[in-house]
Amino acid sequence: MVTKNQAMSPFAKLPAPPYYAVIFSAQRTEGDHGYDDTAQRMVELAITMPGFLGVESTRDANGFGITVSYWQSEADIAHWKADMDHRAAREQGRSRWYQHYELRVAKVERAYGKPVNTA
Amino acid sequence: MVTKNQAMSPFAKLPAPPYYAVIFSAQRTEGDHGYDDTAQRMVELAITMPGFLGVESTRDANGFGITVSYWQSEADIAHWKADMDHRAAREQGRSRWYQHYELRVAKVERAYGKPVNTA
Repeated sequence: MVTKNQAMSPFAKLPAPPYYAVIFSAQRTEGDHGYDDTAQRMVELAITMPGFLGVESTRDANGFGITVSYWQSEADIAHWKADMDHRAAREQGRSRWYQHYELRVAKVERAYGKPVNTA
Repeated sequence: MVTKNQAMSPFAKLPAPPYYAVIFSAQRTEGDHGYDDTAQRMVELAITMPGFLGVESTRDANGFGITVSYWQSEADIAHWKADMDHRAAREQGRSRWYQHYELRVAKVERAYGKPVNTA
């Protein structure tokens, strides 16, 4: 369940490693072409998938973005990859939304951080 | 060596997996406080480190950024972490530049992508 606070923070709240990361970097094409709606819908769909742990995403003014989604297992990633709505969205991504993208699947072995205001 | 083309593309040119990723997500504080100069200097320094493979980085208008650096081995990451200039920069990051950050070290197992215009 995504609480209001989690939805407002750009940081994913993750369990202790190990878990898996899908690192997606992409250069957007010019214009929206339905991208924002679908991107939002895909996040809402991903959240419902088994093994989804969290996502962090950002894009600069030049349209270069990095999205990292986190998953409990490789099987969870495969299941998300096979989702039909997600397949359709990826097809749009390849043909209309991304000039170039790179996707890397990685096993997170260590993690640490500094949330400043934990009060 | 970083060629002009590599410097101009936001994408890292990486060898086939396996290799390691350091996924750094961070919320910047307001104002520069010397950040841009140091960030640029750290990239220039990282490039000279043994085992450095590449880096991708982006930050949105709200100051939320993700930087993923790629390395041949965990030993290379440890060596970079121990570099004195990098330690000093991290100390500044903790005290002045970042409201919150998360760092995850991961082993990249699979990778694929779509560079559109390869002509």
